[in-house]
Amino acid sequence: MSKFAVLGTGMVGKTIGNKLVELGHKVMMGSRTHNNEKAAEWVAKHSHGNALQGTFEDASRFGDYIFNCTKGMMALEILDSANVENLNGKILIDITNPLDFTNGFPPTLTVSNSNSLGEQIQAKFPEVKVVKALNTMNCNIMVNPKLVNQGDHDTFICGNDEHARKWVTELLTQFGWEAKHIIDLGDISNSRGTEQLLPMWVRLMGAVGSPMFQFKIVQ
Amino acid sequence: MSKFAVLGTGMVGKTIGNKLVELGHKVMMGSRTHNNEKAAEWVAKHSHGNALQGTFEDASRFGDYIFNCTKGMMALEILDSANVENLNGKILIDITNPLDFTNGFPPTLTVSNSNSLGEQIQAKFPEVKVVKALNTMNCNIMVNPKLVNQGDHDTFICGNDEHARKWVTELLTQFGWEAKHIIDLGDISNSRGTEQLLPMWVRLMGAVGSPMFQFKIVQ
Repeated sequence: MSKFAVLGTGMVGKTIGNKLVELGHKVMMGSRTHNNEKAAEWVAKHSHGNALQGTFEDASRFGDYIFNCTKGMMALEILDSANVENLNGKILIDITNPLDFTNGFPPTLTVSNSNSLGEQIQAKFPEVKVVKALNTMNCNIMVNPKLVNQGDHDTFICGNDEHARKWVTELLTQFGWEAKHIIDLGDISNSRGTEQLLPMWVRLMGAVGSPMFQFKIVQ
Repeated sequence: MSKFAVLGTGMVGKTIGNKLVELGHKVMMGSRTHNNEKAAEWVAKHSHGNALQGTFEDASRFGDYIFNCTKGMMALEILDSANVENLNGKILIDITNPLDFTNGFPPTLTVSNSNSLGEQIQAKFPEVKVVKALNTMNCNIMVNPKLVNQGDHDTFICGNDEHARKWVTELLTQFGWEAKHIIDLGDISNSRGTEQLLPMWVRLMGAVGSPMFQFKIVQ
């Protein structure tokens, strides 16, 4: 049993939180306030005391591991509000994308090409072990890869700390990912690659007619 | 038999030119000069008179269809030098990527996120039927998809002219692509998606250890 913070009360945060609780972990969902309605609803669905809620700061203090499930455009500000002291030394699994919907659909990216949100987070919090992961798919697939093509497709991770990447790889296998489908790209600068998949992802969703698809790398 | 211009004398131009000649088409390879050494070498390998060379302008005048196989950073300037009168009304298959290697590897993109090279070409030459295609893979795979995973992987096309997209789809089937593996994304703005696959492609090449891999979309 580990203690996790899940920052964000949207679909992604709930889905990740559910899976972590299901795996027997203790999870505190973080939001701006300690009595967030969506978080309370999520807590109420789990009666065994392993689902908690608090502010971003509470959750980050509570968790030995942090899942960043916030909206990409607000991620840096939210992590700031969590207090760096609560993050330092911990593994932060960053599954956000810097999507900017201010001009409608399809979104652009707030940062891309010569930088990425993963790198921005790592640069702002140098003592945090940032691992970019799971950001290239619908959240239901993140925790249940078999939903698509019997699990035969790929996910990508990157981060500067090799031990942290291995730890996340192990967690992903608990989520149902086969090790051969977890492609380790190396340091956090590779999040430029995975985040820039998103402009393609949103267009493929249109062409495929569903968000339930995945990238598979074949040789 | 159709007449094609292939603009560019690099690996991509030669590979596309070879395939078109093999399919029985007449191909003029275009470069800056009418007596380019690489183009001459390519012409000499094809003794039956279906492989020709000339300037970008000569080739574009000659071809009823234009393959843009130039380096992305020079594409707009080269198309300018081909003379818009030689391009207007024709289908231009744009397989270039706006890769910028001036800061080494991995490259960044000269244009991305809120624009793309495909769109820039279409905007500059509004009477040309630009179809972005084949830009997301090694050139040997472009003309021989069976080189990877028995051809079981995907390619993407986009462009504003539906007839032109259908024509390119048909040509790709002659290249060996099964129709079900040619994903039509719609108008040329979708080249923002396919061009932004490149930052991921170059990183995957490192992780996979070879350029002979492909994206497959699975459901």
